[in-house]
Formats: sequence, structure tokens, C-alpha cells
Amino acid sequence: MALRMSTLFLRTLRENPADAELPGHQLLVRAGYVRRVAPGIYTWLPLGMKVLNKVESIIREEMDRIGSQEVRFPALLPREPYEATGRWTEYGDSLFRLKDRKDADMMLGPTHEEMFCLAVKDMYSSYKDLPLSLYQVQNKYRDEARPRAGILRGREFIMKDSYSFDIDQAGLQKAYDAHREAYIRIFNRLGFEYVIVHADSGAMGGSASEEFLAVNENGEDTFVRDEHGYAANVEAVVVPQAAPVEVTAGAAHVEDTPDTPTIETLVAALNRDHARTDGREWTGADTLKNVLVVLVHPDGTREPLAIGLPGDREVDAKRLEVKVAPAEVEPFEEKDFAAYPMLAKGYIGPGVLGSEQSSTIRYLLDPSIAEGSAWVTGADEHGKHVIDLVHGRDFTADGTIQAGEIRAGDVSPDGTGTLKLARGIEMGHIFQLGTKYAEALGLKVLDENGKLVTVTMGSYGVGVTRAVGVIAEDNNDQYGLIWPREIAPADVHVVVASKDESVFVRAEEIVRGLEAQDVEVLYDDRPKVSPGVKFKDAELIGVPTILVIGKGLADGKVEIKDRRSGERREVPVDEAVAQLVAEVAAS
Amino acid sequence: MALRMSTLFLRTLRENPADAELPGHQLLVRAGYVRRVAPGIYTWLPLGMKVLNKVESIIREEMDRIGSQEVRFPALLPREPYEATGRWTEYGDSLFRLKDRKDADMMLGPTHEEMFCLAVKDMYSSYKDLPLSLYQVQNKYRDEARPRAGILRGREFIMKDSYSFDIDQAGLQKAYDAHREAYIRIFNRLGFEYVIVHADSGAMGGSASEEFLAVNENGEDTFVRDEHGYAANVEAVVVPQAAPVEVTAGAAHVEDTPDTPTIETLVAALNRDHARTDGREWTGADTLKNVLVVLVHPDGTREPLAIGLPGDREVDAKRLEVKVAPAEVEPFEEKDFAAYPMLAKGYIGPGVLGSEQSSTIRYLLDPSIAEGSAWVTGADEHGKHVIDLVHGRDFTADGTIQAGEIRAGDVSPDGTGTLKLARGIEMGHIFQLGTKYAEALGLKVLDENGKLVTVTMGSYGVGVTRAVGVIAEDNNDQYGLIWPREIAPADVHVVVASKDESVFVRAEEIVRGLEAQDVEVLYDDRPKVSPGVKFKDAELIGVPTILVIGKGLADGKVEIKDRRSGERREVPVDEAVAQLVAEVAAS
Repeated sequence: MALRMSTLFLRTLRENPADAELPGHQLLVRAGYVRRVAPGIYTWLPLGMKVLNKVESIIREEMDRIGSQEVRFPALLPREPYEATGRWTEYGDSLFRLKDRKDADMMLGPTHEEMFCLAVKDMYSSYKDLPLSLYQVQNKYRDEARPRAGILRGREFIMKDSYSFDIDQAGLQKAYDAHREAYIRIFNRLGFEYVIVHADSGAMGGSASEEFLAVNENGEDTFVRDEHGYAANVEAVVVPQAAPVEVTAGAAHVEDTPDTPTIETLVAALNRDHARTDGREWTGADTLKNVLVVLVHPDGTREPLAIGLPGDREVDAKRLEVKVAPAEVEPFEEKDFAAYPMLAKGYIGPGVLGSEQSSTIRYLLDPSIAEGSAWVTGADEHGKHVIDLVHGRDFTADGTIQAGEIRAGDVSPDGTGTLKLARGIEMGHIFQLGTKYAEALGLKVLDENGKLVTVTMGSYGVGVTRAVGVIAEDNNDQYGLIWPREIAPADVHVVVASKDESVFVRAEEIVRGLEAQDVEVLYDDRPKVSPGVKFKDAELIGVPTILVIGKGLADGKVEIKDRRSGERREVPVDEAVAQLVAEVAAS
Repeated sequence: MALRMSTLFLRTLRENPADAELPGHQLLVRAGYVRRVAPGIYTWLPLGMKVLNKVESIIREEMDRIGSQEVRFPALLPREPYEATGRWTEYGDSLFRLKDRKDADMMLGPTHEEMFCLAVKDMYSSYKDLPLSLYQVQNKYRDEARPRAGILRGREFIMKDSYSFDIDQAGLQKAYDAHREAYIRIFNRLGFEYVIVHADSGAMGGSASEEFLAVNENGEDTFVRDEHGYAANVEAVVVPQAAPVEVTAGAAHVEDTPDTPTIETLVAALNRDHARTDGREWTGADTLKNVLVVLVHPDGTREPLAIGLPGDREVDAKRLEVKVAPAEVEPFEEKDFAAYPMLAKGYIGPGVLGSEQSSTIRYLLDPSIAEGSAWVTGADEHGKHVIDLVHGRDFTADGTIQAGEIRAGDVSPDGTGTLKLARGIEMGHIFQLGTKYAEALGLKVLDENGKLVTVTMGSYGVGVTRAVGVIAEDNNDQYGLIWPREIAPADVHVVVASKDESVFVRAEEIVRGLEAQDVEVLYDDRPKVSPGVKFKDAELIGVPTILVIGKGLADGKVEIKDRRSGERREVPVDEAVAQLVAEVAAS
């Protein structure tokens, strides 16, 4: 049945909503697809439901195709299974927790590894029952610190999550590959540009994992690519450990470097007061910067951490976050300095850092810091730095950490390519979890020899509501949205550009003709709205094909307009239905 | 695509689950449709999803047919709108409340009047925008004190809820009637026996409301019917106020009635020691029983309440509950008696009851207590009753209350029929809310004269997951479930009753033949499972038609069995597909 604008629950807005920054988000609100209820919490209006249902259908079709079976677990969950895996605590503030009337701890599920694992444990007991792949399309809950960009990062959102269960790694690999193929088909059909990148498994645990990122300059994720096909989320880039170098520097010497609390001021002072004998200029890359942060562990304990890296690089907050998860990162503040008087702010060096040194603060180095290399770094006294401090000879650390920023032009991890950076939005994530959850929850089956073996799991997610958001970001222009046909709220937007009753009568016939051939119609049948407003609304709403029935009707003509290209053509009114049917079928 | 038992996520159980009492619930668990996660919280397994999806489709079709538009509101909601209508407090313990990371109060929506009202307020402003009808199919949350009977009364459950918006009562009546018709179509298609009864609007507010009750002896609701078509939930039965009668009794007199704290002992003592002069026996119906309870208001205050009714009737707890909602009813306990020393337990009479009397306890009478009628009732002294106490002459009350039990054989409220009682399960509820919510939240639109008028609303609900439960309760036998075809997980259950490879080959052909004609197949292709187990599973799962391919195949025969009637017939294997297609189409 045609959607009729005269009765459709819709009020298009000419102004952008105050809280929407991204163009797709602005347009989804202005065109009446979604409506904000609270931060990160949205209502889907009738047009939005049409799009959402189509996205869900595509995902279900492709999941069914790989033999995954649809189930639906509750969103409201008991605490115990998540306690068993540690995630009740690890999720920190991002987990919505509540108590029921009997004071039992409950939570809103952010992801369901535990629940699926327990269901399989309850029902299955033999290798013969495997492989198994289950999925659900369901509301998920995460109390994001910064819900943003409308439905791109909500606190209540729809995910397709699936879980595979296999007896061994070969089986898991097969399930993983099947999901990878299914995701490729899903994202191809959804019609946005994406890239598959190596990902960090983060708090989820497990070994291999890849992300499907929608390429988008406003994305929160940064990824790298090189000319040989390597692609990874920056979070997952592993900078190779620099090979040891021969020590060529003389003995380390402390020098006065007054008023040099930053790398910039230090480099200037070095070149002015401590010029190198070989004439080379000092640069930030010659300095060893020591960055302090505080890790807040899930149990609330605070642990300071020092990171040493070349002075011309910053610590990448997201790389650091995934490396220290489930701990959260907070700034090292004045009160923390007060607790560690040996730290001379602006002049901190390895002399006091490390679990064996006076501060006892854990000290981790960037892997680019080669053993044998010499550095200018803080001398742990205000206004003083030490020159020619050699790693391995003059200082050591507690280990390394992959938290330094990755820059365009960096060499690829395998040493053969050059990295380019771009931004993306995480649309899908596939994980080889291995036995982490099965072990914690005791999911074992009997193998062929009657021996109990722990089941190996995979976990796979697609952001469903987020996909609608990404498609909107990718498909719009200054006038409004431009939906790909497979997920558009309708195939044809019929606009009556007239207030003449007879034109409406003819339009009704055409609408019925289209319906009879299963063409989905959005019909602007509003009797007292001007053609100008109707055209603007049609552009804003973004149905791929627009049929205008107006003054040309007197000459037996109507106009078909392609929303994306803007192309218009007049066709005889009697051929309109046939031409539209053909156009819908062809695209 | 056929569901294959060899890979289907299913483990049928021979034993009833310990926590399941009703036969349908037991079978849904045993046959692998649902699985309990926590009290009142269930997972839907693959077979359950098939049934659930069909029920949802029927509901969507019928809602679309009356022009209601599908939307989806969040389940996680802010407190403020529910604060504005008072329901944040009124819901008491049955509301799941939680706080987000910023300490904001949030809740899981039990029903969405407030949210829909606000959305319409935000988007619409004129009478021209109305009428409007919106619906959603969505998870709802209620922290039931006694979650019971599996999916019949869950704490997380799916509801179809819809809301109508009109400019006046005539519009609301039309929307209400349309919903009523839609519900009749829905419940007819779902295929269980139901009755439409007058209902109490209870905490929801508003005027007219009706319930669709599935007739079921295990139901929690009791309803009455008479021979003239009157039907009502007992909660909603309005006992007519008895007309005043002429006073014929002499002056009231207090008599010693030692050891008569109950109606039974009192009646015996009266007949023994205080026989009436006209020879009539005293019965419980001659006595006025005064029942004390404590109302706990949403703000926590406790208010005692006294109810006077004929001694042969009890207070009906559910009738009382809906009359005093949102207050909850608690027993009047020893500590309460201690606080009111004028109450002589077992001998309490109107002498101390009422806001004007010494106890100041509010005193409400059953409407059957006619003005002018004479009663034996407590004399407010241990071991004493008063005889010939006349209502209106010797005592008054603060009002009346419809809380007395309704019994089979009672006269219908209109005085023309005789009531029968039966039990049912609430499957749908339609409410004329009127302006209660629109007023509280300021939903007004301009009318034809440019005057602001408050919108009038209706609210309508169908229990979706509960419907699956009711259908299961209504359609089963000692062997298992028996699904009506329109909502069965498949049309045909194909059983290979053989371990012979060639039989499987032939079965595969038949399954493909059925699939090609859009017949939904559940295919028991398990190679090493005995025919006996397969037959048992087929009966348990309850697909309406069972095709057995076994030893008859040698003679070119297969067997078609009707699950409900048990009828079997042999058909030539070459005709099996055609006959099954015809059978599915016919039913």
C-alpha cells in the first residue's frame, strides 16, 4: 500500500536540528526518519522503519544463506554469567546496571557471548552437534560516555550479533570465513564504501579479528592502508620492534636547559646552546618524551603509567585505550604530581621511571626506541636534560607498548609499503574468540574419542541502526538524502504538482497501477500544499525516483526525475507505469 | 529453505521442566521453542522465532489494514515524561528503574503513552494533522511480583501497542472501533477462543475500555457472562446500588454473642440464642461484615480502609486492587490493630468506622447494602453484636466501593440476566484514554476556529509473546503441541523413517519439490535417529501435517498424517508433493 503524505506521520524541517553535526544525521532528522528522545536514544518514525526493515531483511537473508539460525535472547539479563567472565566489572560505566524488585543485579546486554555460550552448553553435548551458528537482530545497550552523531553511536541501538561454535580451530576458521563472505555481501548490498581492516580484539578477547569500516571522513576510527593491500585499524597496527643498534654515543651528560618544558622549547635550546659537533640540527625525533597517564582499573584502583616515545610523536589515545583495556585512561593531574615528588614536570626522564626506580611507576617504551640508541631526555630536575642517554646502557624500561601515533608516510609493519591514513566508521566486526568464553563458562563437548574438549567460539556483529546512519552520511547532497534503491523507503515518490482535482484522479490511477506491479510508492497527495514545498520534500526524503504529475498532464505528459543524477525526462502519461516498473527492476 | 533437524538448534526434552506448570508452557520448553534465562525472561529458539514472526506478521497486517503506521520507540526511556503523568511513582515496584553514567534517572518502558504523546506534540499542531494512529511491536518491561507460566506473564515481553490521536470523542470512538475490529481479525486468525469483555481502565485512566480474554481455565482473570450477551471482567462489574427500602426493623439492640469472631460462629449463635420472631433462620447474608485492609499509596503513606459487605460475601482482592490503584493493598495486621484500640477484632462495627467516627478510618459499603436495611454487625466490644442496625438510620459510611466478590448466579448489572463465571487470559486491551495524558503533557492542536484544544487519545495493546503462549495452551494433547497452520513453524514435517540411503535421496527430492512450491518444511534428516524418536519429536513439535517416508516407499507409498486429528493416509510417492501442496493451500 502506498504511503500517503496526507496521512503519513511526518513533519519535515527546513532547519537543521541544533544537536546534529553530520549531514546525514541532520537530514535523517529533518526528513522525519528518526527523532531524538534522549542522548543516544532515538525513535524510528514510519519512513525510518521502512529503511530499517529493509536493512534488517538484507542482513537476515545473508545470515540465513550461511546457515546461521535466528534466535532472540533477552536484552534484560542476569548478572551471574557476566560475573563469571569478568565483564560485569570490566564494562565499567558503559554497562547499564539495575536491580529488580527482589534486589537481584541485572543488566542490559551490550553483547551476548555469555548467554549464547550458556544456551549451547545447556542443549548440546557432543561434537556431532557442531558446527553451529546462531544470530539475533536485537536492541543492544551501551552507556556511551559521548553518544554522538545520532544513530551512529547510540546508547540503545540494534545489532545483528552472531556466534559460532566449533570443535576446533579449523572449524572456527571456516565459520569466520563464512561470516566474512556474508558481511561482504551485506555491505555490498547496503551500497557504501567500506574497507576490511585488521582489528584489535580489545576487551572482547580472542585472537584474529577484522573490522568492516565504512570509509568516512567524520568517522571515529582511523585506519591505515598501504600500496600492497595491507589495511588495519590504527588501533591494531603493530609497529615492529626496532632492531638493536651499535652504541656510538659517548657518556651521557646532564646539561642546563632552562625553560624547556616542551619538546619545541627543548629543541630550540639544544640547537642554540648544545649544537652537535657533526652539525646536524637537533629535532624532536632526537628526544625521548615521557608521557604520564593514570589507568583506572575496573575495580576502581588507579595506577600511573609512563610511556616513552620519540618527542616528535604523540601518544594515540585510542591505541593506548585498546592496549590497556579494560582499564580506562585518565590524565595525570597536579594531585598525581604531588604524590610523586620525584617527577619534575616538563623534565621527567627514565632516571626515575620504571618499577625498579624511585617512582616505581611502570614505564613502557615505544617499540621504535632501539636498544643502543641515544636520546635527549629529562634529567628529573627542573631546567635540566640529559644528552646521549642510551637505551639499554643508561636506562631500561618495564616493556614496550603499541600506543604511539601512526602517521601517513610511516613504513608498513612488514617493512615493504608506505602507510596512508583515512577515517572510517565501524560497521562490522568479526572475532575469532577461541575458548575464552567457553572456558570461563564451562562449555565443553565430547569429541570423537569420548574426551571432553572446550568448544571454540567466534563472535560477529553488524551495527544495524548504525548502517542506516552510514548510508545516510554517504548518500546525500545539499537538497537531502539519496537512498540506494534496495533500502529506500519507497521506489517512487509520486508528486502531484497541481491543485486540480482531475490531476489527483489521474495520479491515483497511476499509483494504483504501480502498486499492482509491486512498486512501492510514496504518494504526495496533500491537496493544499504548493508544488514548491512538495518538490523540496521529495528531494529531502530522497526516494530514488520521483514522478511529477502536473501541468504537463494537459498534453498527456508526466515527468520522471532521477533523484541522484537530477536527470528529468518527460514521458507520455500512459507509459509512466511501464517505464517506472522497468526502471525499478533495472536498478 | 527447509529447516533441517540435523542442524537445527534444538534439543527436545522427554521430561517436563521443573518450573513449568501449564501444559502449553511445558511443551514449548520441551519442544525447544523457548528457554528460560531468568524468572519471567526467556530466549526464543529457532522454532520459537518462526512462530513469533508469524504472529507478529498477522498483527502487523491487521494494524496496517486500519491505517495505523508502524514506528519504534526506545525501550530505555528518560524519567521526566513519566514524572509528568505521575506514573514514574505510580508504577511502584513493577517499573524497572536505573541510572545512567551521569546519574540521570531512566526506566524500561512498560507502555508508551507518554512518549507517543510527546512525539505527536512535537510534530503536529493542527486538527488537520488528525486523526492519527501509530503502533509499534517492541519489547516491554514489567517487574512482575510473580512472573508465571513462562511467556504468559514475563518481565521482558513483546507487545504491539498502538495509540490514536483525535480532535474529539467522535474521532476517538472511530479509532477505538477500528482497533476493536482489527483485534477481532487478529484473534480470529490466531485461532484461539476469546471473549470481549468490559474492563476496568484501572491505573491507565480514561473511560471506556474492553479486554480480549482468551478463555482458559488457568487464566489469571475471571470474567462473567450472561445469557443476553453481557460480558465483563469481574474487575469491571458494577453492582447496582440497591434502592432504599422502608425501615421495618425496631430499635437496634446490642446482644451478648460470646466467642463469635467469624460469620459462621455468629450465625450459629444468633440462631441458638437470638432466634427471630418470624421463624426465619439467620444466615450470613443478614450480617454486615467489616473488613479492614491497609492501602499503601505510591508515596509510601499507609492508609487503613474498612469495607462493609454482607457476611456471606468476601472482598474480591482483584476488584479491590483496581478500585484503589495506584495504591497497593496490604493486610491489616496486629500492629495496625494496636494503633487503633477502638477496633475490637472480630466484633468491629460501623459504630467506630468512618472518617467521622472515633477510628477516623475511611469506611466504604458494598452497593448491595440498601438504605433502610437492617443488619447484625459488630458492637465494637468483644463478644457483642448489635442487631437491627439500620443503614441510614443507625449508621452511615463514607461512600461505596465495588470490591465485593461476584458469584455465579448473581443477577447481571442490568437486572435482566444471570451471571456465569469463567477464567481467561488477557490478550488484548483497548482503552479510550481521553485527554488524561494529552493534558498532563500539553498536547494541544488548533481546531477549525483557531482555538487550542486538547487532543483525545486511545491506547491499544496486544500481548505478542503471550499470544504464542496462549495458542500453545489451547492447542496441545498428551503427545505435544498442535499448531494452527497460520502460525505453525512449518507446514509439513517430513520424517525419514529409515536408515537407508536411498530413502533419504527420495526424501530430499520431495523436500525440494515442496520448497519449490513455497511449502515450509521441517525436515527430519537425522541419519542415525530411530523412527520412534523421530515420530515422538514430530508429535511434540506439532507441525500440522506430517509426511512419513519409510518402508512403504518400496511399494511406492508414503504416509501423510494430520497432527490434530491423528488421521493417516497412504499416498503414492509421486503424488505426495501435489497432495501436500493442496492440503496446505486448503487449510
